[in-house]
Amino acid sequence: MNTLMTIPADVRLAGRSGQFTQPTAGCAPGFIQANMMIVPQAQAFDFLLFCQRNPKPCPLVEVLGPGQVEPACAPGANIATDLPGYRVYRDGELVEERSDISALWQDDFVTFLIGCSFSFESAVMQAGIPLRHVDQGRNVTMFRTNMACAPAGIFQGPMVVTMRPIKSRDVAKVVEVSGRFPLAHGTPVHIGNPQTIGIYDLSKPDYGDAVEILPDEIPVFWACGVTPQAVAQASRLPLCITHAPGKMFVTDILG
Amino acid sequence: MNTLMTIPADVRLAGRSGQFTQPTAGCAPGFIQANMMIVPQAQAFDFLLFCQRNPKPCPLVEVLGPGQVEPACAPGANIATDLPGYRVYRDGELVEERSDISALWQDDFVTFLIGCSFSFESAVMQAGIPLRHVDQGRNVTMFRTNMACAPAGIFQGPMVVTMRPIKSRDVAKVVEVSGRFPLAHGTPVHIGNPQTIGIYDLSKPDYGDAVEILPDEIPVFWACGVTPQAVAQASRLPLCITHAPGKMFVTDILG
Repeated sequence: MNTLMTIPADVRLAGRSGQFTQPTAGCAPGFIQANMMIVPQAQAFDFLLFCQRNPKPCPLVEVLGPGQVEPACAPGANIATDLPGYRVYRDGELVEERSDISALWQDDFVTFLIGCSFSFESAVMQAGIPLRHVDQGRNVTMFRTNMACAPAGIFQGPMVVTMRPIKSRDVAKVVEVSGRFPLAHGTPVHIGNPQTIGIYDLSKPDYGDAVEILPDEIPVFWACGVTPQAVAQASRLPLCITHAPGKMFVTDILG
Repeated sequence: MNTLMTIPADVRLAGRSGQFTQPTAGCAPGFIQANMMIVPQAQAFDFLLFCQRNPKPCPLVEVLGPGQVEPACAPGANIATDLPGYRVYRDGELVEERSDISALWQDDFVTFLIGCSFSFESAVMQAGIPLRHVDQGRNVTMFRTNMACAPAGIFQGPMVVTMRPIKSRDVAKVVEVSGRFPLAHGTPVHIGNPQTIGIYDLSKPDYGDAVEILPDEIPVFWACGVTPQAVAQASRLPLCITHAPGKMFVTDILG
């Protein structure tokens, strides 16, 4: 097994076999990868409403029906086995990381597949705009902000954003290109002036790795798929299961 | 009271007073108007999922929390009083039309506001493309199709579409303009060849009025906000409340 698999079903079957437990970045280029969140049906309406009210951090690729494990966006797939890693939270606390959740599956589990930024990052780089964290092989820089998400039922909390330094001359272009990918968080939520959104030190991210910002660059902020997970955990659900960081669900949809 | 009110809050207060019971077409030009659907919370997850899976017929402007009557898109408004007319369905049957539903209100009512085509029609006409049903003062032509909506729980059924005859030279432009209004059903779902989607006689619409199609025109079909109502009624919910035809909820959002 290697991380250069090009067919989405191959990535999923490798995950299912238990032999592929790596992050999915670079796998099946061009296909949409998704953050995954599973909540029991008792909380599913509130969480769906939260996503509907916060489409930039929570762009819904698909919501599976209660108990359903095969998504329409990946016929033949099994959501309970095909990711390279899962995290299980009870009462908001991480209790275990595993490579298969079949043994935990409940008929009332509702699975949310939420877009991630991979497809828009490829398009940005193809448009000739370099992305420093990719060039340096680091995780993207992420911050909690002071921007409140629109609450829904038990779900509320601040928006988490990614930050990418962009040359001044490329800022308009990066807005245009990212706007073509609403399922990958769409246009930026904020450009420049990090302190306005509660970020006081760009060298100290809340998640991921810091990157340098050069004098001719502007920090550009996009809504981040970590938001719904952070919010779901903060709401201290009795049970909630997510993908392990970077270990996404790979769909058959071209991004 | 007249139908030329220009301020959304004036239209809503007129509806609340009980003195304005007319369709809202032409009221508060430029502001988004919405189809309204109220279902009890027991069916709300399924209906929200249905809308999420069928964004062209069911573009969500807003979903209110259980029991909530004041939408974020219209501060100060009351969803139970501010429409010029309501329809109450029990077990899928229309049982009454009334101008106020305060007396029927339940704490578990979840209100869905779903975009309608008014904003995109204004933009199309401003782009120099005439719309025959508007010019002739008729209702838009609507058909049930053989295109199945993506089902969700108890909700399933065919998509209802509107048809507008468009000159061949303007078809690309009308796609472009309507695409800018995803909350008004976005781009067409079908262009030309009505029989492909199960429409065999354009002169016999299932809802609304027929209009002539001239030799240099193509029938262009858009997803229609009647779809969720038809589907909700067909599912024979114990209780469901909608706006009366043409008597929309007027929001404070510019379209």
